[in-house]
Amino acid sequence: MLTPEMLPRLQQLLADADLDGWLLYDFRGTNAIASGLLGFDGLVSRRVFALIPREGLPIGIAHAIEPGPWAQWPKAWPLRTYSGWRALESEVASLVQGKRVAMEYSPGDAIPYLDRVPAGVLEMVRAAGATVVCSGDLVSQIYATWTPDQLLSHERAAERIMHIAHGAIAYAGDMVALGTPVAEHELQARILEAFERAGLETHHGPDVAASENAANPHYMPSAASPRLIQRGDTLLIDLWAREKNGGVYADQTWMASMGAPTERVVTVWEAVRDARDAALSLLQSRITAGLPVRGGEADDAARAVIEARGFGPQFWHRTGHSIDSRELHGSGPQIDNLESRDDRLLIPGVGFSIEPGIYLPGELGVRSEVNAYVAEDSLLVTPGDVQRDLIVV
Amino acid sequence: MLTPEMLPRLQQLLADADLDGWLLYDFRGTNAIASGLLGFDGLVSRRVFALIPREGLPIGIAHAIEPGPWAQWPKAWPLRTYSGWRALESEVASLVQGKRVAMEYSPGDAIPYLDRVPAGVLEMVRAAGATVVCSGDLVSQIYATWTPDQLLSHERAAERIMHIAHGAIAYAGDMVALGTPVAEHELQARILEAFERAGLETHHGPDVAASENAANPHYMPSAASPRLIQRGDTLLIDLWAREKNGGVYADQTWMASMGAPTERVVTVWEAVRDARDAALSLLQSRITAGLPVRGGEADDAARAVIEARGFGPQFWHRTGHSIDSRELHGSGPQIDNLESRDDRLLIPGVGFSIEPGIYLPGELGVRSEVNAYVAEDSLLVTPGDVQRDLIVV
Repeated sequence: MLTPEMLPRLQQLLADADLDGWLLYDFRGTNAIASGLLGFDGLVSRRVFALIPREGLPIGIAHAIEPGPWAQWPKAWPLRTYSGWRALESEVASLVQGKRVAMEYSPGDAIPYLDRVPAGVLEMVRAAGATVVCSGDLVSQIYATWTPDQLLSHERAAERIMHIAHGAIAYAGDMVALGTPVAEHELQARILEAFERAGLETHHGPDVAASENAANPHYMPSAASPRLIQRGDTLLIDLWAREKNGGVYADQTWMASMGAPTERVVTVWEAVRDARDAALSLLQSRITAGLPVRGGEADDAARAVIEARGFGPQFWHRTGHSIDSRELHGSGPQIDNLESRDDRLLIPGVGFSIEPGIYLPGELGVRSEVNAYVAEDSLLVTPGDVQRDLIVV
Repeated sequence: MLTPEMLPRLQQLLADADLDGWLLYDFRGTNAIASGLLGFDGLVSRRVFALIPREGLPIGIAHAIEPGPWAQWPKAWPLRTYSGWRALESEVASLVQGKRVAMEYSPGDAIPYLDRVPAGVLEMVRAAGATVVCSGDLVSQIYATWTPDQLLSHERAAERIMHIAHGAIAYAGDMVALGTPVAEHELQARILEAFERAGLETHHGPDVAASENAANPHYMPSAASPRLIQRGDTLLIDLWAREKNGGVYADQTWMASMGAPTERVVTVWEAVRDARDAALSLLQSRITAGLPVRGGEADDAARAVIEARGFGPQFWHRTGHSIDSRELHGSGPQIDNLESRDDRLLIPGVGFSIEPGIYLPGELGVRSEVNAYVAEDSLLVTPGDVQRDLIVV
């Protein structure tokens, strides 16, 4: 959230980028970046703007009916109020006329996560006499980065969910051995109970998918169509959780085999694992050398491995997503040159998942997922123990 | 939701408007109109499009990772799948090149409720060779209108919440008389219990606000700062609910006085009441005469009364909001020429609130709210008994 304490750093970034300001816009929660920075709790039902200028105090534009969302706006910062559209348009014009401002606008929708301003609003701002550029670098620096405390919270969550995943896999194996195999949704419920005991929370999931069900990367088990995890199955567990009270998510995927895996499963697993490691190697070498690196490049590196193994068309999602300080699927740089063209730099302080996968409909799905955080001159990967081989139980 | 049964009517509308198609876009729930028409349940995490062409079958464009949201897409309608941005852009181009299509785009953000397509997406569609116009009239016709069954459900809900409001006011009066005045939030809880008994549901509220608290139109009572409703208070109750299982909301505001009202309160009440009735009269006369009428005109009519009584600056919101078949604050025509420039026609089948208000910070807030539905040649107003005078208890 924007605070007086962070204003000098933000204004330095604006000066460095030759920007006159950052113009935030939200309406009915369509711009999570703006509502996060403005500390809004819940949707705003009327249009709001805020300008963070290169010099001087930020200025908010609130609707008269709705002062509530601005409760956290610093008292020292001006907050103007409008009722009608004429007043709104002239307030906006008074803020941005002749200025070069950043907004959550991505030309051609290259990065949909950054393309949050409706076309008509951009026209209004341009008609007010502003030049609008993409706020992507500001979003990375100011919105997406983790604090040192948040990194520690993420690391704790990562260790805990790793142990929870291992425990779940061992349990599924035990149940097979006992002749009383557990259903996917039952294992899911056990994992949720383990989150609770570990002081973790999640908004959804986890995914527990046997063999052919794992070929749908967004599969969710359900009691309505139970699927037992049995001998011969491959088991995918994708789980994500964070410490309560504002932790940063950890998000991992683990692969197991109920009994010895077939050669084909091992081949697919090794392609996925090596793709994951190719992305991590590229990132590590660039970051330790102090060279710039972008999420799209890491996506290309992972994808090249899977394509070389002949599974290119079966890897149909990005290599990873931003994990920002608020959201599991964050607004920072994505590890993606497939679904979108993310050319944002992976700057110190951002975190993300690396999770290539291969999906063979009707047969099998394999994914391996770790998280990474860009430190000043190194890449921190969580959990500490990255999966090397299929866990055979 | 779009169905094969409604396709002929929609395609006739497209032909009448000289459009080649309606291009729907959604991403992460930013376009409620598109997700409602496509029958999506929950957010889509990847970009999706659907073209409803003037002739032939609708065509959806889904992401490979996410077939789930398309569960209700008719089997007979093509559903294409993409993974990468190049494929997405070429699919979009193949659908719209050289065509004139409607999207949820409102030039200059004149109607923010219709401005749901990010600027970068509009650029992508234009770069694909399309001419894009505002889908407003289609949204009114296809998305916002109520079915006859929905009208009946709304009418039932309207009668029930009227009785619940009357009962709550009587109870507050009884408690004052007994010397055990009820707090706002306690009365709110009683209303919610009454909704439950009446088979109604709501997502929020109701608002119960005494005297000075009602000067904030978005006030919500709370146990954390209890406010007793006492002799001499003015009481505002704004309540909204619908029948469970898909009813259309009814939304009303009632005003009461705990004991005889002051002359000033009566003056303010009469200004509000007469503003409400001026809007209703304008609508009734136009609609029964078969003449076109727009939401902004009804807003002007209500506002003129309040301005003439000297309270213009204290009426700082639109006169009313769309109530569509899904949402209390709907995407159909708004009764608004203050906050936005809504020039959409109020066509048969749309419903909305009429709710002028006067807000005197620190002192008093007064609002009166009814709902209206445009029938073929008449305006139906709910509830049957519109409040004429302050309810004195």
